[in-house]
Amino acid sequence: MMAAAASWNTKHNLFLLANDRTLSNNSLSFLFGGSWLHSLCCTRPAKLSMKVSAATLGMGTTKLSSSACPIVDVDLGDRSYPIYIGSGLLSHSDLLQRHIHGRRVLVVTNTTVASLYLDKVVSALTDGNPNVTVENVILPDGEKYKDMDTLMKVFDKAIESGLDRLCTFVALGGGVIGDMCGYAASSFLRGVNFIQIPTTVMAQVDSAVGGKTGINHRLGKNLIGAFYQPQCVIIDTDTLNTLPDRELVSGLAEVVKYGLIKDALFFEWQEKNMQALISRDPDAFAYAIKRSCENKAEVVSQDEKERGLRAIGNLGHTFGHAIETSCGYGHWLHGEAVAAGMVMAVDMSYRLGWIDVSIVERVSNILKQAKLPTTPPKMMTVDMFKSAMVVDKKVANGVLRLVLLKGPLGSCIFTGDYDRKALDETLHAFCKS
Amino acid sequence: MMAAAASWNTKHNLFLLANDRTLSNNSLSFLFGGSWLHSLCCTRPAKLSMKVSAATLGMGTTKLSSSACPIVDVDLGDRSYPIYIGSGLLSHSDLLQRHIHGRRVLVVTNTTVASLYLDKVVSALTDGNPNVTVENVILPDGEKYKDMDTLMKVFDKAIESGLDRLCTFVALGGGVIGDMCGYAASSFLRGVNFIQIPTTVMAQVDSAVGGKTGINHRLGKNLIGAFYQPQCVIIDTDTLNTLPDRELVSGLAEVVKYGLIKDALFFEWQEKNMQALISRDPDAFAYAIKRSCENKAEVVSQDEKERGLRAIGNLGHTFGHAIETSCGYGHWLHGEAVAAGMVMAVDMSYRLGWIDVSIVERVSNILKQAKLPTTPPKMMTVDMFKSAMVVDKKVANGVLRLVLLKGPLGSCIFTGDYDRKALDETLHAFCKS
Repeated sequence: MMAAAASWNTKHNLFLLANDRTLSNNSLSFLFGGSWLHSLCCTRPAKLSMKVSAATLGMGTTKLSSSACPIVDVDLGDRSYPIYIGSGLLSHSDLLQRHIHGRRVLVVTNTTVASLYLDKVVSALTDGNPNVTVENVILPDGEKYKDMDTLMKVFDKAIESGLDRLCTFVALGGGVIGDMCGYAASSFLRGVNFIQIPTTVMAQVDSAVGGKTGINHRLGKNLIGAFYQPQCVIIDTDTLNTLPDRELVSGLAEVVKYGLIKDALFFEWQEKNMQALISRDPDAFAYAIKRSCENKAEVVSQDEKERGLRAIGNLGHTFGHAIETSCGYGHWLHGEAVAAGMVMAVDMSYRLGWIDVSIVERVSNILKQAKLPTTPPKMMTVDMFKSAMVVDKKVANGVLRLVLLKGPLGSCIFTGDYDRKALDETLHAFCKS
Repeated sequence: MMAAAASWNTKHNLFLLANDRTLSNNSLSFLFGGSWLHSLCCTRPAKLSMKVSAATLGMGTTKLSSSACPIVDVDLGDRSYPIYIGSGLLSHSDLLQRHIHGRRVLVVTNTTVASLYLDKVVSALTDGNPNVTVENVILPDGEKYKDMDTLMKVFDKAIESGLDRLCTFVALGGGVIGDMCGYAASSFLRGVNFIQIPTTVMAQVDSAVGGKTGINHRLGKNLIGAFYQPQCVIIDTDTLNTLPDRELVSGLAEVVKYGLIKDALFFEWQEKNMQALISRDPDAFAYAIKRSCENKAEVVSQDEKERGLRAIGNLGHTFGHAIETSCGYGHWLHGEAVAAGMVMAVDMSYRLGWIDVSIVERVSNILKQAKLPTTPPKMMTVDMFKSAMVVDKKVANGVLRLVLLKGPLGSCIFTGDYDRKALDETLHAFCKS
């Protein structure tokens, strides 16, 4: 009973098939009831598959045509996307432009990163591409601004600029910017495209990959948000050149985490290369980022929405989030809190008799080598931990589930089935009553 | 490389298969890398299938065991859910309880509805079910409160109550409550279960079905939100007994819409039964709600995220949203604005030569019979329409796409390919310059 309305072509169809959130038709009419809609759904089952390839990025004559960079694929069926990793990627306009849909772009960044990279990204988006116009919104820098008031500035800018469903949001910055921009993209007009350009180690090895987005609530970290995947992640390792040491080292906590939860060989590599990493050796960093992304992509591909497996990425995070929330967001960097949290989780695992003492020592040693904290801040009390841990997202029907190590190096468990005495002992061992 | 961790049982597995967002394991451990995770993904392809059945709802001896009610299924693969329609459904505790997961429930309602139905719903949730505890948050009533500040009250309550990922949000109210509660459920801890209990015609025939959730921005309606499907929709037609006439009639605008966009027979039925509807005839209403839900479910099943087809549900809404935004939210009810907007869309369709004059007259007649407005408020100017329409979600690359009628009764088109002169003429015909 609907009038047929013309003009669906093969190119558009492919475009839609390629990406779940791509709206590629605009001035033309939609063909109602055609078969293309059916083909959008469940065309590829999500499965474990994490591919790494060296791919030629360039398509034009002046653009990266002879270069190659590692690509890690996050396999999520019709929401799959590539992670590009390499030096100088922000100079390659074709790389960004190929993932822009529509003619309007909103770059979300912060005061620190804007002065370093905003012009470069805008150039990359617009060079040789006069049809694209770029808006930007520059947020204050820091975890304490990861809140609803700051998020509203992104919506205000997008709406005041008249952006439509075909626009693309670009997250240019660290984990806070990526999380906020991603959540804004998930909610603006009920969902628009977005691209992650992480500029910190923390974001490059962890937060920019996997689609966890959100903001903090005064009572807890990341309590409001969405699972929402980007179009791609572009990691220009050169951006680390401008990263302060403290930020750089903070990100290494997540690198150590991957070794502990599932990749003993990577942990052993880190033990040998930690000095190179904190000395900013480019090759060491390129490897650490790639291997971290591979680990993250593998977990996310199996359990996008954290129904089980993906929770292992939270080793040390329940203790760490308690530290961040109790100290006031931003006083301790996320990775610093996670480092101390991992030591506490490892201590508890040992008290439960689940790991050998050698693992306890190796974790402590590698974090000290990275100059990361191995104890929580002195002001933390047992009660502060307990009250913050009550609102952790991993609580289920009143039971706090934790990621703990169990077995040989590289083995962990996500469970609420542990002796509460061990948790109490760990809390009392690390902080005053 | 991960430790196996026990205790996944058949009951839980089925539970997880039955619902995409169900987290049913809590105090037990998760089995990493087991096959159950794979079985969550794409187990059923989304396809066109809208089934209506009369099903026995009761399972226990004291609960609705001999009753039956119509059920409309919204077929969205592993996010499918039933719409129950009938008199007295809120008295049947088993119906609500079967869709509650976890032990904690948050009822989101407003000051008006709370005094009428909150106790009843809490009883239905807890009768014979001592494991469940119910919190509530009572929001101010009205479209003007469909904003971020009010939404934050839902998050505050959920977090302060220590609700976890296994909780269920219940939306008890009209479209504003359903949209806000659904958006809150989509974002709280990155997504928890929710149930729609719509208590207005508008919500029962349209907004509670299909997963569109969100809030308004001062510059436009529903600009911030998510596509997020409920566990079920429970329509107790008795709740209409307490609905003011103006609200009741407002909802009929959406009923008329279904006839115009895709169901000529339903439109003809409405022409014969409009008097019965505005007289609150229960049988007429039960049919109108069921047929509306069937139409909505059919469209949503084919195009959940409004890539094309689903946009036809917006007939009259672009003009209508402009009225609501320009007048100040709440001055005109949504259905009133949509009614005037449909008349404008029909007028424009006629100017384009796409429909016969008889359709123009029939639309005007049926809306007048329903005592709905057929012209926008006198204060609206052409410029007010134009500036509000710029931020409409259906704009793509700067082109405003509209739902217009084309062909015989029950046929429509969603297109940006129309003569702008016709739009201008319609705006000038209906309001001052």
